[in-house]
Amino acid sequence: MKSLFQQKLKVINVGLQGFANNIVASGGEVSHLSWAPPAGADAALGWTLANLVADPRVEAANRTAYDRYLAAQPRLVDLVLARDAIAGLAAGERRILHSGPPIAWDHMCGPQQGAITGAILYEGWANSLETAEKLAASGGVALEPCHHHKAVGPMAGIISPSMPVWVVENTAAGNRTYCNLNEGLGKVLRFGANDSAVLDRLRWLGTEFFTTMQAAVRGLEDANLKPLMAQALHMGDELHNRNAAASALLFKRLTLSLLKSKVDSGAIQRALAFIAGNDHYFLNISMAACKSMSDAAHGVPGSSLVTVMARNGVNFGLRLSGTGDQWFQAPANPVDGLYFPGYTVEDAAADLGDSAITETNGLGGFSMAASPAIVQFVGGTPADATANSRRMLSITLGSNPAFTLPALNFGGAPAGIDARLVADSGVLPIINTGIAHKKAGVGQIGAGITTAPMDCFNDALAALAKTLEGGAK
Amino acid sequence: MKSLFQQKLKVINVGLQGFANNIVASGGEVSHLSWAPPAGADAALGWTLANLVADPRVEAANRTAYDRYLAAQPRLVDLVLARDAIAGLAAGERRILHSGPPIAWDHMCGPQQGAITGAILYEGWANSLETAEKLAASGGVALEPCHHHKAVGPMAGIISPSMPVWVVENTAAGNRTYCNLNEGLGKVLRFGANDSAVLDRLRWLGTEFFTTMQAAVRGLEDANLKPLMAQALHMGDELHNRNAAASALLFKRLTLSLLKSKVDSGAIQRALAFIAGNDHYFLNISMAACKSMSDAAHGVPGSSLVTVMARNGVNFGLRLSGTGDQWFQAPANPVDGLYFPGYTVEDAAADLGDSAITETNGLGGFSMAASPAIVQFVGGTPADATANSRRMLSITLGSNPAFTLPALNFGGAPAGIDARLVADSGVLPIINTGIAHKKAGVGQIGAGITTAPMDCFNDALAALAKTLEGGAK
Repeated sequence: MKSLFQQKLKVINVGLQGFANNIVASGGEVSHLSWAPPAGADAALGWTLANLVADPRVEAANRTAYDRYLAAQPRLVDLVLARDAIAGLAAGERRILHSGPPIAWDHMCGPQQGAITGAILYEGWANSLETAEKLAASGGVALEPCHHHKAVGPMAGIISPSMPVWVVENTAAGNRTYCNLNEGLGKVLRFGANDSAVLDRLRWLGTEFFTTMQAAVRGLEDANLKPLMAQALHMGDELHNRNAAASALLFKRLTLSLLKSKVDSGAIQRALAFIAGNDHYFLNISMAACKSMSDAAHGVPGSSLVTVMARNGVNFGLRLSGTGDQWFQAPANPVDGLYFPGYTVEDAAADLGDSAITETNGLGGFSMAASPAIVQFVGGTPADATANSRRMLSITLGSNPAFTLPALNFGGAPAGIDARLVADSGVLPIINTGIAHKKAGVGQIGAGITTAPMDCFNDALAALAKTLEGGAK
Repeated sequence: MKSLFQQKLKVINVGLQGFANNIVASGGEVSHLSWAPPAGADAALGWTLANLVADPRVEAANRTAYDRYLAAQPRLVDLVLARDAIAGLAAGERRILHSGPPIAWDHMCGPQQGAITGAILYEGWANSLETAEKLAASGGVALEPCHHHKAVGPMAGIISPSMPVWVVENTAAGNRTYCNLNEGLGKVLRFGANDSAVLDRLRWLGTEFFTTMQAAVRGLEDANLKPLMAQALHMGDELHNRNAAASALLFKRLTLSLLKSKVDSGAIQRALAFIAGNDHYFLNISMAACKSMSDAAHGVPGSSLVTVMARNGVNFGLRLSGTGDQWFQAPANPVDGLYFPGYTVEDAAADLGDSAITETNGLGGFSMAASPAIVQFVGGTPADATANSRRMLSITLGSNPAFTLPALNFGGAPAGIDARLVADSGVLPIINTGIAHKKAGVGQIGAGITTAPMDCFNDALAALAKTLEGGAK
């Protein structure tokens, strides 16, 4: 015992950094282990979490959900008008879909209101922005989340009946999902812009471009999306905020299909010129593909797998496979971003859009290691990007062998967020995102990185635990 | 002094590892510094090198050459038949260009002989492989390096009068360069294959495809190559053995140009389908662009900048800016590669082709940090790829701000190989390369990594020193 006090002490400090600081100040050496109690040190939640971690039913349910996710084979099968594919938007219905969890008009952020009034004008349900706003505010148009209709939309996420939507089918399970068309960057509806240039572009996208692209998609020689997305991950995309490679690869397929079609050459030329100029063109297809994969994993009783992360510009919303259609919401975390010249964080709307479906599927922020060049768009360094992917592996059920990341020595993308691991580790899912101006009508003002708020995960786990109460383990 | 022997020794060992091993074996601690004498411990050469390093004329000449290299702006200006652009191949001339330094027919490797006999058949100068071989062996066809005619060609590097060649112009200096068309992978002329399928493809490339691509190039809205190549480096290409992104980006430009042209739609469809299926399509354009940049830096008296590295399947050849048209040759180093199923190193020809012009320009092996996915084609790990780029920075005059590498925190590609630095450090330029079967007629059997042989650099420096003898420093 005496000899212990004569030895040079080697100290390991766990938890609060302050204790370590004191030892260093006294001339001692200390290794500090960063640690915090699980479940935010909430004893009740900690107990719930411990039970869920020990519950073999959760393990089994997660294995089932995760296997369905890995087995999914998304295929780009069609481009149709929303009213012909989405039940709630059938002819005669006055309904508009938006991103994120449910939210009433009065509580919506500027860009989402701006995009909805734009869509009302596009549908011809009003003749001016003022009357469109009144119509929306009076409840004259039903407003519901895309996710309630097997759909997703980036940023404001607006889908109205006359808009074309991509149709992706997971051929492994037969489920279909939908996403609207990408309009390009800058002043576009999804960032809340709604002037005549925005509406004119939407009208062209809904007519000539629509019929052209429909022919292109229907004539595709290879409509499988997983191999294309895997290839894009080897070409610097993370398939959320960077889709330059996937867009170029899709461009090749669409071109070859159109050249065999009977579509007028002028229409082909205009459509392909539009796509060639938009490196984000593939984003909406990536989102529909991701939605088809996580929908396949949804609805397994007892599973703590996250199947939806989505933001409406006010709240962040989460769904678990095992808690069905229930949303778990919390105020959206701020975005740490790079702003376009002339704009600052003061101008920014809160985190917005269904595009976090890519992170839900292990892409986007989770696959940043594949995309060092994206830091020029969202901030940080290539080393941060790689570290982000490594960190996300600590909160996922595994890694996806279909989506490999070269910089991680071809290890799979972190895949299948387990809400238990998030609550246990305190590591929040990272999300790459665009930034909209907080006012309607302006558009995109930057891009950056944010995280999912912890409260959603805690609430979701409490609800999951309730569904398991009383049942046999 | 006495206290020194009582202290615990801290040993640094410089040079031979063996001394360090003995200290470790005796229980001591040692840091080993890997070091070898410059110039391969050749005293005379070491003296030459020391003089060249200290010579301000070399510094000034290198600055001039390097600035010309950095200022180059390669533009894809045309696709023409070789006989209409390259003086030595004018109508009536029986001359064929090949890769690497000069070499007589009898000494050529199998694939280069195979490709030359194929080209003789393609030109109609003989009716069978046997008579074609006899014609070549008898001197009935002049055989000269591409590099003697401002041209480059990958692998066998064959350019005959009726073959189309890309025309690249460096608009900063007005110099033009040429490269043949990429035929795809596998059984192709450049890997020494010469059967009827190979020749039929060449005939189509020289007729319908040629006129189609000529219209495409002449109608390009944006013919600047440097920004496209820079973008491809951010998309996982190193622009030698991986050109997937650059090919896809070029495909977009060519498509938009062709859709505005009056070319028959069937011809457009066949041409674009051919390009879409070939991820190496851009290689030959990358090579012509590189040749235009290093030609701009060539011919500065006193400069130790490397302006050509090329292989003929037997010897590796080097040219310095300051030694004009002189070649410095040594036997090509072996290729450390990944072989296609069924083939081994026993089947391989020695290192072959002018494509090392990409490494001469800081791309290919020098820019592997941009291309982690390439290790699946040439071997090694992504960490090796990054280390290769870092190591090459030790033998270059600087880094190219126009070609940034995301994984090196957007540092420039190592650019401007200084032969003095190679001889001083012993660090050899690394080259990504394809591997041809050693027999004529087979084709590609793998890809891998090799290095330039040191003897070329030593000989080049000795020759450079001679050019400076007697002059005022």
